[in-house]
Amino acid sequence: MLKVGLLGAGRIGQVHAVNIAGNARSSLVAVSDVHRPGAEALAAKFGAQARSTEEILSDPSIDAVLVATSTDTHSDLIEAATAAGKAVLCEKPVDLSLARARACLGAARLSGRPVMIGFNRRFDPNFAALKAAAQRGEIGKSELLSVTSFDPAPPPVSYIKVSGGLFRDMMIHDFDMANFLMGEVPVTVRAVGSSIVDPEIGAAGDVDTAVVTLTYADGRIAVIKNSRRAVYGYDQRVELLGSDGLLQAQNMLENTVVKSTTAGVVSAKPTYFFLERYMPAYAAEWEAFVSAVLENAPMPSTLEDGIAALAMAEAATESARTGQAVTLDLQEDFYRKAV
Amino acid sequence: MLKVGLLGAGRIGQVHAVNIAGNARSSLVAVSDVHRPGAEALAAKFGAQARSTEEILSDPSIDAVLVATSTDTHSDLIEAATAAGKAVLCEKPVDLSLARARACLGAARLSGRPVMIGFNRRFDPNFAALKAAAQRGEIGKSELLSVTSFDPAPPPVSYIKVSGGLFRDMMIHDFDMANFLMGEVPVTVRAVGSSIVDPEIGAAGDVDTAVVTLTYADGRIAVIKNSRRAVYGYDQRVELLGSDGLLQAQNMLENTVVKSTTAGVVSAKPTYFFLERYMPAYAAEWEAFVSAVLENAPMPSTLEDGIAALAMAEAATESARTGQAVTLDLQEDFYRKAV
Amino acid sequence: MLKVGLLGAGRIGQVHAVNIAGNARSSLVAVSDVHRPGAEALAAKFGAQARSTEEILSDPSIDAVLVATSTDTHSDLIEAATAAGKAVLCEKPVDLSLARARACLGAARLSGRPVMIGFNRRFDPNFAALKAAAQRGEIGKSELLSVTSFDPAPPPVSYIKVSGGLFRDMMIHDFDMANFLMGEVPVTVRAVGSSIVDPEIGAAGDVDTAVVTLTYADGRIAVIKNSRRAVYGYDQRVELLGSDGLLQAQNMLENTVVKSTTAGVVSAKPTYFFLERYMPAYAAEWEAFVSAVLENAPMPSTLEDGIAALAMAEAATESARTGQAVTLDLQEDFYRKAV
Amino acid sequence: MLKVGLLGAGRIGQVHAVNIAGNARSSLVAVSDVHRPGAEALAAKFGAQARSTEEILSDPSIDAVLVATSTDTHSDLIEAATAAGKAVLCEKPVDLSLARARACLGAARLSGRPVMIGFNRRFDPNFAALKAAAQRGEIGKSELLSVTSFDPAPPPVSYIKVSGGLFRDMMIHDFDMANFLMGEVPVTVRAVGSSIVDPEIGAAGDVDTAVVTLTYADGRIAVIKNSRRAVYGYDQRVELLGSDGLLQAQNMLENTVVKSTTAGVVSAKPTYFFLERYMPAYAAEWEAFVSAVLENAPMPSTLEDGIAALAMAEAATESARTGQAVTLDLQEDFYRKAV
Repeated sequence: MLKVGLLGAGRIGQVHAVNIAGNARSSLVAVSDVHRPGAEALAAKFGAQARSTEEILSDPSIDAVLVATSTDTHSDLIEAATAAGKAVLCEKPVDLSLARARACLGAARLSGRPVMIGFNRRFDPNFAALKAAAQRGEIGKSELLSVTSFDPAPPPVSYIKVSGGLFRDMMIHDFDMANFLMGEVPVTVRAVGSSIVDPEIGAAGDVDTAVVTLTYADGRIAVIKNSRRAVYGYDQRVELLGSDGLLQAQNMLENTVVKSTTAGVVSAKPTYFFLERYMPAYAAEWEAFVSAVLENAPMPSTLEDGIAALAMAEAATESARTGQAVTLDLQEDFYRKAV
Repeated sequence: MLKVGLLGAGRIGQVHAVNIAGNARSSLVAVSDVHRPGAEALAAKFGAQARSTEEILSDPSIDAVLVATSTDTHSDLIEAATAAGKAVLCEKPVDLSLARARACLGAARLSGRPVMIGFNRRFDPNFAALKAAAQRGEIGKSELLSVTSFDPAPPPVSYIKVSGGLFRDMMIHDFDMANFLMGEVPVTVRAVGSSIVDPEIGAAGDVDTAVVTLTYADGRIAVIKNSRRAVYGYDQRVELLGSDGLLQAQNMLENTVVKSTTAGVVSAKPTYFFLERYMPAYAAEWEAFVSAVLENAPMPSTLEDGIAALAMAEAATESARTGQAVTLDLQEDFYRKAV
Repeated sequence: MLKVGLLGAGRIGQVHAVNIAGNARSSLVAVSDVHRPGAEALAAKFGAQARSTEEILSDPSIDAVLVATSTDTHSDLIEAATAAGKAVLCEKPVDLSLARARACLGAARLSGRPVMIGFNRRFDPNFAALKAAAQRGEIGKSELLSVTSFDPAPPPVSYIKVSGGLFRDMMIHDFDMANFLMGEVPVTVRAVGSSIVDPEIGAAGDVDTAVVTLTYADGRIAVIKNSRRAVYGYDQRVELLGSDGLLQAQNMLENTVVKSTTAGVVSAKPTYFFLERYMPAYAAEWEAFVSAVLENAPMPSTLEDGIAALAMAEAATESARTGQAVTLDLQEDFYRKAV
Repeated sequence: MLKVGLLGAGRIGQVHAVNIAGNARSSLVAVSDVHRPGAEALAAKFGAQARSTEEILSDPSIDAVLVATSTDTHSDLIEAATAAGKAVLCEKPVDLSLARARACLGAARLSGRPVMIGFNRRFDPNFAALKAAAQRGEIGKSELLSVTSFDPAPPPVSYIKVSGGLFRDMMIHDFDMANFLMGEVPVTVRAVGSSIVDPEIGAAGDVDTAVVTLTYADGRIAVIKNSRRAVYGYDQRVELLGSDGLLQAQNMLENTVVKSTTAGVVSAKPTYFFLERYMPAYAAEWEAFVSAVLENAPMPSTLEDGIAALAMAEAATESARTGQAVTLDLQEDFYRKAV
């Protein structure tokens, strides 16, 4: 039984609390939050204790921590928790600064403790099934990947301004999806973007619609499309063309009802946003973390994965700004071929 | 090259004319119609001659006739044409009277000439592919058949009154579809019906919504659903459950466009009515007739098939009236096991 | 907060325990089971106590019980629990004997305590959404209902022998679905059935494939299809044709991955069986019970509903045996028009 | 009645012959081909005459010609036919040389005769319906276009060598599709490509897999994906994201049969290649040409459209070679805003 401290009792922390408590091999023993009453309420619901982060990290009976705090604290908490001997599952992104994330990686490696970055989409049953089919060779050799990732509505411009920009804030998930599905990091990044959804986003120096093309050393190509607004819901799809066929992971719909009238044949919309779509993924992610820790197995998504995605986001940001292709050199340091 | 006379230049005759002229192995040489100018216009468009039915039947250079006249003339024309040595493709139904149809069968058999009844749905690419898959054993042994057949809108009550009733006028196609897919005729017929779409139809002594259950000697079951009104279009579907799986033939849609908005995910409607849906079927039906005649092969849908469907329609009409199951005894006389 | 005792710690009891504990307005305080260690293990996992059924019923601090024991105990436990002042959610069926179920209804009415019968499919998000759309008038007036309900594989013949037969054991869910969606009970029942899946089932006096046709006082028609074997999974679909369109609730698939190869375009299968398909329905069912008890509102599925479905199952069993239609007279006693 | 001469009796010429003869407002009067017997056979089938191209062009009774000869003759024949006063429908591409195509445009403009370039995909019922929905404003303002266009199998390398390369030979259709759907030409073109399907194609200096990103003056973005090999068939899809929703045109399937077994749920494959997929489009294209000529209306796809697509293909070829974005300047000369 893995004894777990949860750092952060906000919306995503509450999702994780249910999964920690509901998992047969983990128990939630402590919760911390900068807003103490939030920690207390969440702890009470699951029979855990509200404590400070420091108390949690210094408690030797706690095996692992889940970091669900604000992004600017991630690197510090990963370093402190691993130094204190905890296994760590940290929400993405590792950091908005690539240099800071790399320093964190160094510290975590020194600690010898396992760190998983919460790229929840890897655990979505649809994307996971697509990857499993590809790994079984069901479409032969992969050649061309397409990732479609549209949010239902843009966030407030105030959020945009501190987000690090679309490539770091939103497309970073899709960069990781590309790394997950291609099993390798790309060698070039080409990005175009515009602020056609909301000119205010452009005025804040960001884009809201973007296409990134990735090329790989072996000739494969990936293309990622992002929009901050798809009014019909959260549009999360993947297509992988291979030498023997095509794999597609389509959207999950709110229900299976189909209505046929004179107006046409109407199905339900995609599940609205990430909590609806990825709720099963969060549970599977936690189960994967518990398994890896208890079985001393490799983490299914690592700090290195987090850094690779961040480096790609930086490259895309630069490419969109300059109009030029950016060359990456990530293979040696970070990545093992997986597909 | 099969030289063909077309009897009847109405809407369905015009469809057949295109297929006769367009087929590489047939040519349209003559057209007759009770409305002479209609025959003349249709003949001119395809370089054929407008002639009387008698002239066509007595012309020894004409190999085959296609009967596309009104239902009450079918039996007479089949008898006259086969007596004149023609191969015949006749629109369904053979007749509204089972006794008359049986007499016609006797006469046609005496002539030794081949007669095909135009059960166009057998040649629909979807239903034909479903049957082919079943015959290849792809779902093992068939067990339970469902036929859904809804018209887009009810005909005028004036038509209802002379139609012979829903079971003879509309469900007769589905009885033939059951015979086609099950490869056998049923032993019992149970029908329920009501006039819920339009009380005027009930006042005219007919039903507009009906469900018929068929049982087979070997324990298989079929169910047919009819409605005179499906406002979204012509709904023509089949499902066949077998020991190793399920086959479904779904509707053909007007196009493949899908629109996702806040209102839902909207696809195109089914093609509106039989001419849109079954246009490819009419061409395939004609090709099947030409092949059978030129290659001296068995007709793919026969007068016996027409009589079996008519007998089932009569049984269903009686069952709906009395509330009792009706037992059929068709196997000996008519049918060869095919699936 | 509703304090709940769970009677029965078997497979379905375990599903209910998670939902009772996970619901924000209920807590699981006690568990009983004829197999005491099962009750103890389940209680321990959720911080509840293992107790005898008698102790649970006589504890005034317990507000409600969930009956998840074997069918033959349902009527007795409903009577005992309501007499003890508990609100009751009881798994279906109420009883295999219609007379016993009616006696139970009388006793429960005398107690004045609310009883809900766990017709879980009413709470399936797809069927619930279909009914909601129908109630909003989105397809006008309903006319023709079709329910398809196939199990993935037949149960052992030993189970068949004590099951009460397909109509009571399996189709009873579909009878309730018809009542739920039509908002009324039918006036006639016609059933045909055969044992084409497994002759052993026939030798045991039961059928494994069946079609039932229901007619309603206002002319509407429903048809239910059952098979004990659909090798591709649990096939649970509904279609409702109305004056303004068609509503369909389709199967839920294991995932959204689609693979296109030379062999065709392959999607995932339906979720395998009832626990996979109806897991969200069980949570919604429990939430509906909690709401109804706490808000003193009518139960969304009642003992009367259970009796109506059982009476339809008896009628179908008789109709399949005799080959005759059976007339029901349920409206006066039990049912309120809902759609 | 439009009297038509057909130049070219090869595979695509034969498709056009059927549509010319079958159209109610056109008749096929003459056919020419460098292989005289081919012209004679095709003419005989439709009651037309086999003549030389010169005879056809100099016959004042012929109103229009359809140019279905090899690509290297297109420019010359357009010039000769328009000079002879004919209306012209010419297969794409106009020419492999942009300079030659521009000279042809100049000559055609001088003649004052209408010229349509046969971008058949504009007349595909699915793409046409998608554009019509966009023009009706059903998804608001368009923002992001995706075109997927995969051939079932690569052509022989001998063909590749004389094809002008993937961007001119294959993606040129998709460039026109982008122009058709966006109603404007782009300002930048970015291309990546590789020869991952077949290294022989790379050795011949071409690519077989490519992604092109287009940006527009108003901030819109389009992305086109091409592969020479999709083993499951001809994959031709379009997605257009707008401010109020998403429009998708999906593949047409060989039939609507769905098979569910233990292996999954299998649908038919996409129609195999362009003749199967675009047969209805060729008929609609011809009808559009006939309408435009007889009603003296603008051609629905023009020489200017052909030149714009060719210029985009040249830009993409250069971008793929250099790795740099290429800026276009086509708006002033050629294009009218249409969407």
